[in-house]
Amino acid sequence: MADRLKGKRVVVTQAADFMGPVTVEVFQEEGAEVIADTRSLVTAEACRALIKESGSVDVLVANLASPNFSGTAVTDIADDDWRTPFDQLVHPLHWLTQAALPSMIERRQGKIVAYGSATALRGLKTLCAYSAARAAQVGYIQSVGVEAAPHNVQINLIAQNYVESADYYPPKLMEKPSFVASLKRQVPVGRLGTPREDAMFALFLASDECGFMTGQAFPFAGGWAQR
Amino acid sequence: MADRLKGKRVVVTQAADFMGPVTVEVFQEEGAEVIADTRSLVTAEACRALIKESGSVDVLVANLASPNFSGTAVTDIADDDWRTPFDQLVHPLHWLTQAALPSMIERRQGKIVAYGSATALRGLKTLCAYSAARAAQVGYIQSVGVEAAPHNVQINLIAQNYVESADYYPPKLMEKPSFVASLKRQVPVGRLGTPREDAMFALFLASDECGFMTGQAFPFAGGWAQR
Amino acid sequence: MADRLKGKRVVVTQAADFMGPVTVEVFQEEGAEVIADTRSLVTAEACRALIKESGSVDVLVANLASPNFSGTAVTDIADDDWRTPFDQLVHPLHWLTQAALPSMIERRQGKIVAYGSATALRGLKTLCAYSAARAAQVGYIQSVGVEAAPHNVQINLIAQNYVESADYYPPKLMEKPSFVASLKRQVPVGRLGTPREDAMFALFLASDECGFMTGQAFPFAGGWAQR
Amino acid sequence: MADRLKGKRVVVTQAADFMGPVTVEVFQEEGAEVIADTRSLVTAEACRALIKESGSVDVLVANLASPNFSGTAVTDIADDDWRTPFDQLVHPLHWLTQAALPSMIERRQGKIVAYGSATALRGLKTLCAYSAARAAQVGYIQSVGVEAAPHNVQINLIAQNYVESADYYPPKLMEKPSFVASLKRQVPVGRLGTPREDAMFALFLASDECGFMTGQAFPFAGGWAQR
Repeated sequence: MADRLKGKRVVVTQAADFMGPVTVEVFQEEGAEVIADTRSLVTAEACRALIKESGSVDVLVANLASPNFSGTAVTDIADDDWRTPFDQLVHPLHWLTQAALPSMIERRQGKIVAYGSATALRGLKTLCAYSAARAAQVGYIQSVGVEAAPHNVQINLIAQNYVESADYYPPKLMEKPSFVASLKRQVPVGRLGTPREDAMFALFLASDECGFMTGQAFPFAGGWAQR
Repeated sequence: MADRLKGKRVVVTQAADFMGPVTVEVFQEEGAEVIADTRSLVTAEACRALIKESGSVDVLVANLASPNFSGTAVTDIADDDWRTPFDQLVHPLHWLTQAALPSMIERRQGKIVAYGSATALRGLKTLCAYSAARAAQVGYIQSVGVEAAPHNVQINLIAQNYVESADYYPPKLMEKPSFVASLKRQVPVGRLGTPREDAMFALFLASDECGFMTGQAFPFAGGWAQR
Repeated sequence: MADRLKGKRVVVTQAADFMGPVTVEVFQEEGAEVIADTRSLVTAEACRALIKESGSVDVLVANLASPNFSGTAVTDIADDDWRTPFDQLVHPLHWLTQAALPSMIERRQGKIVAYGSATALRGLKTLCAYSAARAAQVGYIQSVGVEAAPHNVQINLIAQNYVESADYYPPKLMEKPSFVASLKRQVPVGRLGTPREDAMFALFLASDECGFMTGQAFPFAGGWAQR
Repeated sequence: MADRLKGKRVVVTQAADFMGPVTVEVFQEEGAEVIADTRSLVTAEACRALIKESGSVDVLVANLASPNFSGTAVTDIADDDWRTPFDQLVHPLHWLTQAALPSMIERRQGKIVAYGSATALRGLKTLCAYSAARAAQVGYIQSVGVEAAPHNVQINLIAQNYVESADYYPPKLMEKPSFVASLKRQVPVGRLGTPREDAMFALFLASDECGFMTGQAFPFAGGWAQR
């Protein structure tokens, strides 16, 4: 490893969930001082408290997870479930960003990397709430990325799909030949991505090596989504 | 005109706002039976009541408006204002769609056309909440458009910007030479679009002439956004 | 029909191929004076002669066809085949556009509609030359669409796929249950598009109803491509 | 540095032009064995000879340059100039890729990184030939990226704009206040990108850290293009 985050103070949210554990691991290996937070972030107060407690943050990794209610038709989704992805993915992204930006702008340096979803870029059925919320994240970073850019703060999003996860792809599913066949048909690379290679991309976006891309959503989905 | 909506029962929401009046006018000229509704749609109940009262709807025009808080930095936007575009643009789009779809699916015909925004596709600064909410609309129609497609229901969105509107472009602004110059620099066609040409595109998407495009967001912005 | 092209002088290229016949039919029904040309357009001279002979053209429909060499791996494609789509799709689009534009710009009115391919927007294997050439068409109309826009000339492209065609989808293929199943899996609407609905979209783009979209490539593929 | 390309045999084409010098430098720093080739690549023979002479190539950096004829209206561009970007950017990309792939496929490992242009993604006026050719590159890598993916070969493109270059942005231009003002208006980050940060992105795409993205064109333009 190369100390690519040496001296950087990094907040990783929901550090025990989704892409949290691997991000903490990779970022620490690269020399970052990682604040691996595990609190729930469904209120503005919680988001603001986290940032306030964290001091001068160089990198915010907005790792936000939500049930996706996959398989529930749009005509069947319950009102509470409809709201869940907005409450867990969208509003916290804003509150965290809003709280973290002033110090980044003042110091003229900062990175925000959001783990998002390629379902924001390419529609899949029976994912209406999740797709809408993930797309809201993309619209948000597109606007705020442009707004923060003149202050030397870069904000980007990894629009991922087909990344290994015990939640979305439990071992039993992975053993089914029909699932493996479907994977090869749907995903050009023919396999799931590993959390580690996902975190390596987040590392690149979070490092000083990357300062000329901002407000962008990058498909990370084995070729399933290209733009 | 050509009776392109003859025999079609069309609901136009917020018929007095945004693209409502011109849509009602154009759609009636084309033979539609238009239900020009003007109620507030910020609750699920209101959305469901509207669809229930409207009988068998052939076309739903989701014309939803919201303040955009343009000019408010992401670091300054108030929590209430942050939520407004979601409450006025995103949740009603879902509740209306969810209520209208079962009858469309059962009859194997239906169109949903949403007036949205090109700010969902290309980021502009100081528009964080509005951009996120408009992008959520795009993510929603991408997913639901794919889901409804096998039932011969098409759902599309007009991602507009730079369309004449007394709210966004008041006469005084239009008279300023600096605004006209900026318009020519930003918008390739060099002028604002007219509400009528916007409604003509909605008419095309709502008519039986258009049955092979779905789940799509079409930039309608004088060339300012291309994809 | 509604005389939507009444008084318009329209050139349809390769009128006997691809989308030519249906375009001529629909445009004539709408009152256009159609020049249904059938010459080969692989030389600049041929393209220029066609436009010169056609007088003041209001609408140019660039209907250009090429073998796609589908099924040929990138490692196997012959040099001559590699060049064919560029010779038949890309260079003629430029020569035709270049020849038609001066009169359109002078009169401050004109439309160019190109039938293109959604393979420019979403990659499919064993289509390298065709995909590259179709993407070149998109890049071309994006640039020239912006350039021509201030002169009140609009240039757009229909990025189609899965449209009925005896060449691409011969009757024998259409009868195979495996093909029908694959179609339902790949294409959200679950069927091929008809040439007529394709031409109806071209009609909309060519008519005076559509003046605020330019430099755009519109997916027309049953939901297979959304952007 | 981190030896991220240790043991990798890399071909950099046109090593003295465009992004060549900085790529050679960065890749060598990272431990690559770099074949810094400077021959003209406008013939299939030259492309094939280069790959043949290079042995087992792990990474091909397709660094291809062409005049862009910026400022020449589409109505004025000469036929020879029209063809130049295709001859210098498109055909060589294919011949190089075609020659390099068999060995990569056989060994089930390989990366191709193309330096391309964001003008393929967002139209700019008076750039018709260049935009078309750069878009052809994108269409090509989208198709071939999907095709090569199951063989563990990843092919991606950097869609750059506003990167420092003595050719495109000569020192005299950079000193003009009007240019600096225009830059701040057009490019969210408010500056040109450096060749080195461009090469750092190429490094990431070329390294083993990146194996789950393919067939993609990444905007690298200071936020000027987002998708």
